[in-house]
Amino acid sequence: MKALVFDGTISLREVPKPEPAAGEALINVLIAGICKTDLELTLGYMDFRGIPGHEFVGVVEHSPVSELVGSRVVGEINAGCGKCSYCLRGLERHCPERTVLGILNRKGTMAEYLTLPVSNLLRVPDSLPNEKAVFTEPLAAAMEILEQVMIRPADRVLVIGDGKLGLLVSMALRLTGCDLLLTGKHRHKLELFARTGGAVCMLSDLVRSGERFDIVVEASGSPSGWDLAVNSVRPRGAIVLKSTYHGNLDFNPAPLVIDEITVVGSRCGLFGPALRVMDLGLVDPTPLVEATYPLDEAEKAFAKAGERGALKVLLTV
Amino acid sequence: MKALVFDGTISLREVPKPEPAAGEALINVLIAGICKTDLELTLGYMDFRGIPGHEFVGVVEHSPVSELVGSRVVGEINAGCGKCSYCLRGLERHCPERTVLGILNRKGTMAEYLTLPVSNLLRVPDSLPNEKAVFTEPLAAAMEILEQVMIRPADRVLVIGDGKLGLLVSMALRLTGCDLLLTGKHRHKLELFARTGGAVCMLSDLVRSGERFDIVVEASGSPSGWDLAVNSVRPRGAIVLKSTYHGNLDFNPAPLVIDEITVVGSRCGLFGPALRVMDLGLVDPTPLVEATYPLDEAEKAFAKAGERGALKVLLTV
Repeated sequence: MKALVFDGTISLREVPKPEPAAGEALINVLIAGICKTDLELTLGYMDFRGIPGHEFVGVVEHSPVSELVGSRVVGEINAGCGKCSYCLRGLERHCPERTVLGILNRKGTMAEYLTLPVSNLLRVPDSLPNEKAVFTEPLAAAMEILEQVMIRPADRVLVIGDGKLGLLVSMALRLTGCDLLLTGKHRHKLELFARTGGAVCMLSDLVRSGERFDIVVEASGSPSGWDLAVNSVRPRGAIVLKSTYHGNLDFNPAPLVIDEITVVGSRCGLFGPALRVMDLGLVDPTPLVEATYPLDEAEKAFAKAGERGALKVLLTV
Repeated sequence: MKALVFDGTISLREVPKPEPAAGEALINVLIAGICKTDLELTLGYMDFRGIPGHEFVGVVEHSPVSELVGSRVVGEINAGCGKCSYCLRGLERHCPERTVLGILNRKGTMAEYLTLPVSNLLRVPDSLPNEKAVFTEPLAAAMEILEQVMIRPADRVLVIGDGKLGLLVSMALRLTGCDLLLTGKHRHKLELFARTGGAVCMLSDLVRSGERFDIVVEASGSPSGWDLAVNSVRPRGAIVLKSTYHGNLDFNPAPLVIDEITVVGSRCGLFGPALRVMDLGLVDPTPLVEATYPLDEAEKAFAKAGERGALKVLLTV
């Protein structure tokens, strides 16, 4: 089969079709998304080698659960051991033995085929076209915040960062009814959220206002975003760290102690809720699509996704 | 009256007796405690000038609430505006206009007299001698963790730091029934907790064990304590930051995001619960008393409290 492979450089190649292990399905990929994490993997993150990609919609070709064959599916990216205390609580995404699709010890989605445990798969409702359903994984990651932090309808929430993640987080969190403001440096990206009725604010204006928020989500991935978060949260409020950072943060923790701030690290989420809110029409991530390329042009797609300010780049297989 | 005054150096002086403002009581101090924060104030923290001290037991001499006159009291150290959203929720300790006894715009306890709003005062139960009741403030700060984080009886909890704060935190948190381990570098201090049946472990042994905990309380105030906390908490667990630090922390936040760790800054607590658990005999902090000096020897007491490894030093007035 054709697949994009990273072994220090990224290139499209002919590789063997994967063999599903016990309990796994073989899935024919229809569409895959390129995420910032994929770009970081090719810059050395996790010492990754192999087929990248963890966002996809596909059709089940073989499955030990025969009713799934022929179904259009998405798949949770963390495959746990099924036996540890995390897996037993539905937290496979924290299983210490987990493999992670296209990230850790499991071949990814930028290929004609992939394998995943049947228990990771969810049927895609007919209402959702591929280019919407392919956002299930990043939207689930955005909604993970709601699994971790109680956001009340009366809360004032700030989302820092107008990239894909910040936009999806804003779309997800405003479903709580909270009073949400998205801030960033790119007028045209803020506009995507504003066009759907969302409140937005250029970063420079926010810094001047000095307003304090109940909850601040740091989704910019820049150290200046962290500094802004600390300066924007009210006493006893919460900062959600949604991005990893290149390198270390250097900061004075005294304000966190004095103001009793809670900082919550947040990563992957469950797919069911993400599919539900898209199926209900409550979140439509398709305005985030920047460009779509066939798998044959995957190298070009990767270059496009790496351009400064690019939003979501999709690959059709 | 006599008072200890810091104006760049610390010295005992004759100063005017304070005049209570509207709604305030005049309190004759019986005993005062020296806290690590007091030592830091004399090293430049908060640009403090004046009478330090925020731990005390006293007798009300004048009060607009006449029934209080003659009562033995302790007093919450944060005096709020009484009107803001924090004060209205009982969170005077986060009022942006607050004064703080012996720390911020309010003369402290290391003197013959002090003033506090009547609403800050709590009567001391007869069962509690002065040398126990004087621990109300630091024990309340330890119990603040229980206001912020749910600690379940089945939780495995690690407290890092065998100083006064770590010991009080350990005494308070084990009331939840949790499986608590106190770790530190000083065998004789760990022994104070072990003698009451507490589980303790030298830091070097813990580092070797590599065990992971549901909740880790960082009460050592050292950057290595923070590093240990990050390495000792399980995925989805919580780190409570109970100490401020000299200077900045430099760390990689990626593990907090990947493992979805929650970091909770924690400062002052409510006095009522602290008095209750001491009155019930559930916590006895008196083994932490290192030495007691009369106010006339306050300078000597301060020097003693500043000695490496010193526990609680008290001043009788």
